[in-house]
Amino acid sequence: MPIGMPAADAAADALDPAHLRELSTRVTVALSSFLDRAEPVLTGIGPELWPPAAAARDFVLAGGKRLRPAFCYWGWRGAGGHDCDEILTAAASLELLHACALIHDDVMDGSDTRRDRPSTHRRFAELHRQGGWRGDPEAFGASAAILLGDLCLVWADQMFAECGLEPAVVDRARGVHAEMRVELMAGQYLDVLASVLPETDSAIATERAFRVARYKSAKYTIERPLHLGGALAAAPAALLAAYSAYGLPLGEAFQLRDDILGVFGDPAVTGKPAGDDLREGKRTALVTLAEQRAEPTAAAQLRRLLGDPDLGSEGVATCRMVISGCGALAEIEELIERRGAQAREALAAPELDDPARRSLEALAAAVTDRIG
Amino acid sequence: MPIGMPAADAAADALDPAHLRELSTRVTVALSSFLDRAEPVLTGIGPELWPPAAAARDFVLAGGKRLRPAFCYWGWRGAGGHDCDEILTAAASLELLHACALIHDDVMDGSDTRRDRPSTHRRFAELHRQGGWRGDPEAFGASAAILLGDLCLVWADQMFAECGLEPAVVDRARGVHAEMRVELMAGQYLDVLASVLPETDSAIATERAFRVARYKSAKYTIERPLHLGGALAAAPAALLAAYSAYGLPLGEAFQLRDDILGVFGDPAVTGKPAGDDLREGKRTALVTLAEQRAEPTAAAQLRRLLGDPDLGSEGVATCRMVISGCGALAEIEELIERRGAQAREALAAPELDDPARRSLEALAAAVTDRIG
Repeated sequence: MPIGMPAADAAADALDPAHLRELSTRVTVALSSFLDRAEPVLTGIGPELWPPAAAARDFVLAGGKRLRPAFCYWGWRGAGGHDCDEILTAAASLELLHACALIHDDVMDGSDTRRDRPSTHRRFAELHRQGGWRGDPEAFGASAAILLGDLCLVWADQMFAECGLEPAVVDRARGVHAEMRVELMAGQYLDVLASVLPETDSAIATERAFRVARYKSAKYTIERPLHLGGALAAAPAALLAAYSAYGLPLGEAFQLRDDILGVFGDPAVTGKPAGDDLREGKRTALVTLAEQRAEPTAAAQLRRLLGDPDLGSEGVATCRMVISGCGALAEIEELIERRGAQAREALAAPELDDPARRSLEALAAAVTDRIG
Repeated sequence: MPIGMPAADAAADALDPAHLRELSTRVTVALSSFLDRAEPVLTGIGPELWPPAAAARDFVLAGGKRLRPAFCYWGWRGAGGHDCDEILTAAASLELLHACALIHDDVMDGSDTRRDRPSTHRRFAELHRQGGWRGDPEAFGASAAILLGDLCLVWADQMFAECGLEPAVVDRARGVHAEMRVELMAGQYLDVLASVLPETDSAIATERAFRVARYKSAKYTIERPLHLGGALAAAPAALLAAYSAYGLPLGEAFQLRDDILGVFGDPAVTGKPAGDDLREGKRTALVTLAEQRAEPTAAAQLRRLLGDPDLGSEGVATCRMVISGCGALAEIEELIERRGAQAREALAAPELDDPARRSLEALAAAVTDRIG
């Protein structure tokens, strides 16, 4: 895709799956080129900083769906912004923010793997073990991962601020940028809280799960990235409202799909062990709905197995059976369908031009139909 | 002190101890007014966010020496910037960055107290316990503290970006701002590493301790805040160099004073248990120097006690005796003296005007002579 292409040619590059892949590649290139600039500052401090630098690079370049940058990019294009390297860089910085969230999330959850590789704290615990260092390898791993997450958060901000757009342009998006990050941390906190608050009425727990979904996914993953791109391009309020009308239901669908994958997902695709959410005791909308729909004995069994750190494949199978047998799975699938349709309807807004509309349609499909 | 006072009147407000206290009060006011704006965004998400909001407010308003904001402020004034609320706000944002560093540091070290109160993770573990919530209170406390630190880092950036100075002015300091935060995280990592790397030659360990001091204290606490204020005021390169010539030795003195307080400090003043650094096994410059200077049996005894989590007051007394008996304490005191003198000599630079010179002199004394 030519750089600096005027908006008039934009119709040519609306998102089909191939373009979605191409956009993802350009995001990876932008991240790689930022790290090429940022790493020497870090490693110049001492050779001990090579492992954190390598861990950050491996983490952000290894994968992820690049959804947030895609939404940010199309938020900009939809508001009349031209395709250019600068917006790609601003959008790609969201991957570094997300790296912070995931690295810290894995420490908090004690997760062993991420994207089919050892999680960051495990990687550093292994470095400690192989070096025969003093003290507890796990404690060192956790410390290193906390600091690496912090570094990614700092780098995310730096990459965004230094994206190359004019200071006054970047400044237009300051408010949304801050709000997005505050909402992310708040959503994470609500998520942690949901797994420790006392057993309540499942209906209350379901309401809670939807609120977590709203902040962790609907706003942070979709609405805010769209707003960020839109704000950079000085989008009018009506367009930002259309982005919300599209982004919030789609984000809810995204989280609900995530809930299903956390129980029924294929480890070969998700890169996480089967039934990980069950082992962590996550009371997702899917799980709390199953608690309401299942027969009392089945519901009690589900509650008993939920949060067992040693839950094996048999336990996972039992939970799956309860969740699908009571109709909760089908109900959530239907809700995903409905929210996806709502999101697509919002794309009829007259503020959107055709290429943006088609790209956001393709992204909606990628979000709701994904298998990993 | 009148707001918006022109630089010509600056001579009147050079830092004596009363002015240092006044500046610290103005920093607290700026933080409080930022939190008044930022908190509603957080708590608007849900009533569950009140405890994190309160914890952040308590943490940043409760105290601290406000050294970093003071250096940032005088970096600006020294470069001809006028006293105004906007620079106070930019400078005060460093306290939120520092809050992130300390909150995460306490999680990593497993520290029980900070500033004479329960550390953040302990505070949230207690909330968990009192609520009778499910799961492990300590794990919840750690998760909440990790997220609260992240939030403080995000708020620090937001407060700096929204300080009210023109976007183009803020943009001038972007580079320094990013470098400072990267150096902070790198210094923290080196510090964690120093406590796990295999026992080496004490001379190598001393070199390592000085490198940690350079990044954690010399650059992060003093040089970079000065540069940040200077960059905002478009300081010429010669002035920035003078700031370095003053800040680096003074920062080293700051860290060496910290090392002494970590072993000999009065808990009533430091707000941390006596001999905390010994219990944590920190191989500071003071400790590694003692390892080199002490008789072999005394040195072996020191090494044996170092890092014992259950080290009692008798063990602390033994370590103190070794460290002062071998001359290491006196040697470090002398080094602090020398570095302080070096810093004061650098203030002769012709680029500095008199009020800035006198204030930086007062700050140097506050840094090297402090008892907590």
